[in-house]
Amino acid sequence: MPADRSSRSIRTHSTVPELRKDPITGRWVIISTERRKRPSDFHIERVARAGAADCPFCAGHEDLTPPEVLSYRRNGGAPNTPGWDLRVVPNKFPALKVEGGLEREAEGMFDRMNGVGAHEVIIETPDHSKTLASMSEVEIERVLYAFRDRILDLKLDRRFRYILIFKNHGAAAGATLEHTHSQLIALPIVPDFVREEIEGARQHFGVKERCVFCDIIRQEMASGRRLILEAADVVALAPYAPRFSFETWLLPRRHGARFEEAARQEYEGLARLLKSVLLRMNRALESPAYNLIIHSSPFSEETGEYYHWHVELIPKLTRVAGFEWGTGFYINPTSPEEAARVLRDARV
Amino acid sequence: MPADRSSRSIRTHSTVPELRKDPITGRWVIISTERRKRPSDFHIERVARAGAADCPFCAGHEDLTPPEVLSYRRNGGAPNTPGWDLRVVPNKFPALKVEGGLEREAEGMFDRMNGVGAHEVIIETPDHSKTLASMSEVEIERVLYAFRDRILDLKLDRRFRYILIFKNHGAAAGATLEHTHSQLIALPIVPDFVREEIEGARQHFGVKERCVFCDIIRQEMASGRRLILEAADVVALAPYAPRFSFETWLLPRRHGARFEEAARQEYEGLARLLKSVLLRMNRALESPAYNLIIHSSPFSEETGEYYHWHVELIPKLTRVAGFEWGTGFYINPTSPEEAARVLRDARV
Repeated sequence: MPADRSSRSIRTHSTVPELRKDPITGRWVIISTERRKRPSDFHIERVARAGAADCPFCAGHEDLTPPEVLSYRRNGGAPNTPGWDLRVVPNKFPALKVEGGLEREAEGMFDRMNGVGAHEVIIETPDHSKTLASMSEVEIERVLYAFRDRILDLKLDRRFRYILIFKNHGAAAGATLEHTHSQLIALPIVPDFVREEIEGARQHFGVKERCVFCDIIRQEMASGRRLILEAADVVALAPYAPRFSFETWLLPRRHGARFEEAARQEYEGLARLLKSVLLRMNRALESPAYNLIIHSSPFSEETGEYYHWHVELIPKLTRVAGFEWGTGFYINPTSPEEAARVLRDARV
Repeated sequence: MPADRSSRSIRTHSTVPELRKDPITGRWVIISTERRKRPSDFHIERVARAGAADCPFCAGHEDLTPPEVLSYRRNGGAPNTPGWDLRVVPNKFPALKVEGGLEREAEGMFDRMNGVGAHEVIIETPDHSKTLASMSEVEIERVLYAFRDRILDLKLDRRFRYILIFKNHGAAAGATLEHTHSQLIALPIVPDFVREEIEGARQHFGVKERCVFCDIIRQEMASGRRLILEAADVVALAPYAPRFSFETWLLPRRHGARFEEAARQEYEGLARLLKSVLLRMNRALESPAYNLIIHSSPFSEETGEYYHWHVELIPKLTRVAGFEWGTGFYINPTSPEEAARVLRDARV
């Protein structure tokens, strides 16, 4: 039927997001061309800096975002109206589409599936002037609970295997809107960086019958050389072999594979340490742009004994990164011992 | 002895380059603090833009670099004097030091070794105004021969397992000097990105008894969808699952694991295609910054049947990369079919 055929030819690969697998490394990438505004616009993206007046994330501008999927409202109030403390909405320019089946298929030797997934934005506060660092510990904890609540909801969808939660702060780290927010992407695959950690942790457990992250925490707390901060339940440290200057990991001291199964006091401790580390970075490193990523176990795997959830915080201090960008091979100009000392000593 | 002890305490980790292994993923990183000018200078590096008058890579300024390790001089002439067509010198701010033993050792559960390696700069032309794209095919071929000659020399040093050859063009890609040049780093370890490719290629060979790169070349030449350019001996294509917009691979059509063992006509073909692809990128993408990386077999492994050397070319088109930076998980806004078409159609 001609009508059918012509509609099919319009629906090209460049409009529907796709997941494609590299046949050499097995790494999946998202090809999502809709996020580019104009098809001819390949050159460097400019970051739109909306003031509070035009900001879609400010209270009173609820109609500028897709309808919320979650909000925290201490005094009640209807969805998509002001009065919220925190709000989660679908990303207006999603990298993946939540509708439809995976439709795994081959193109000769190559493997693809539809770019099915959720892409949401966690608006951390209605206040345009705040940052994660300037929010109160209670407010930061609320953000962590929102992550948890969204994970618990989305993992009911059997199409998804991993939920990636991350925050880009500052234009240099990839933020396109100033108003403080995090992002969540639910994926039908497990990203490479988690797969690598899980594989390594599994091997360590196979030899030692201990969690490699627990071993690291024990050694770092004993030596103190790379320790940045500790609370009763959470520890912040500079990893032994950091890829980036001032790369910082925050880990629960108690073993646990899944962020969403953490205890109440672990969210409390994480909020406290996160605020303190961010304030110290702001002081010592001139309020850097940064990326924050939560590493947690995939849903699809039983990693309980050997994987250990944690948060990675990476300030964006150097523009000179071409080498690392292309190769995934890292030259770090700051030792973790020095980074830990600088952050420990920063006055906040 | 007190004198000995005090000299040892001065020689801290922050002055000697080190290779450190992440205990979870097994990834080695270089901690090299000497490249930072001032110990207190953690914030964003500025790119120094030397004009031709102060440029250490211009003819007549040979005394501004360490003594050359290789030069091509058609009309003879003493080393470190003008008259060269191409010159290779040690990097003045090396990420690794060429002297000394590896001294592998443990720090508790962690593994380290001295940051032993060569770090050299290939000054591609004496002419400050040229770029790799504007150089003649013969001049580009000369650069490829310099890569080969340095690899053949450095692989005699049994401490080294891999030689990384790359080029950062433009400040956004990490170039700190304008004068066109490439870099070489000889390493006592195999970088992760090569290890991953080799492991994947070995698995493919295990199942199919064919090289995965040869399979890709055959399929891409048959379909033409992602083919950019082809010559008798070399092919340029957009990979099926590219991490970056307009990521381009250049591969020899004949199977071969090692760049340094390529045939003369393969260097010729590579030079021709490289020039053409760069000119097309300049036309279609407004002369982007880019990274170029040579992928070749480690010395320490017999990969001859299943690994296939190639060149990866990655234009730096988007600043919005926080997500990828931190996670190693990629969202690409351009399909490779579209990228290949744009580059095929670019008028040069």
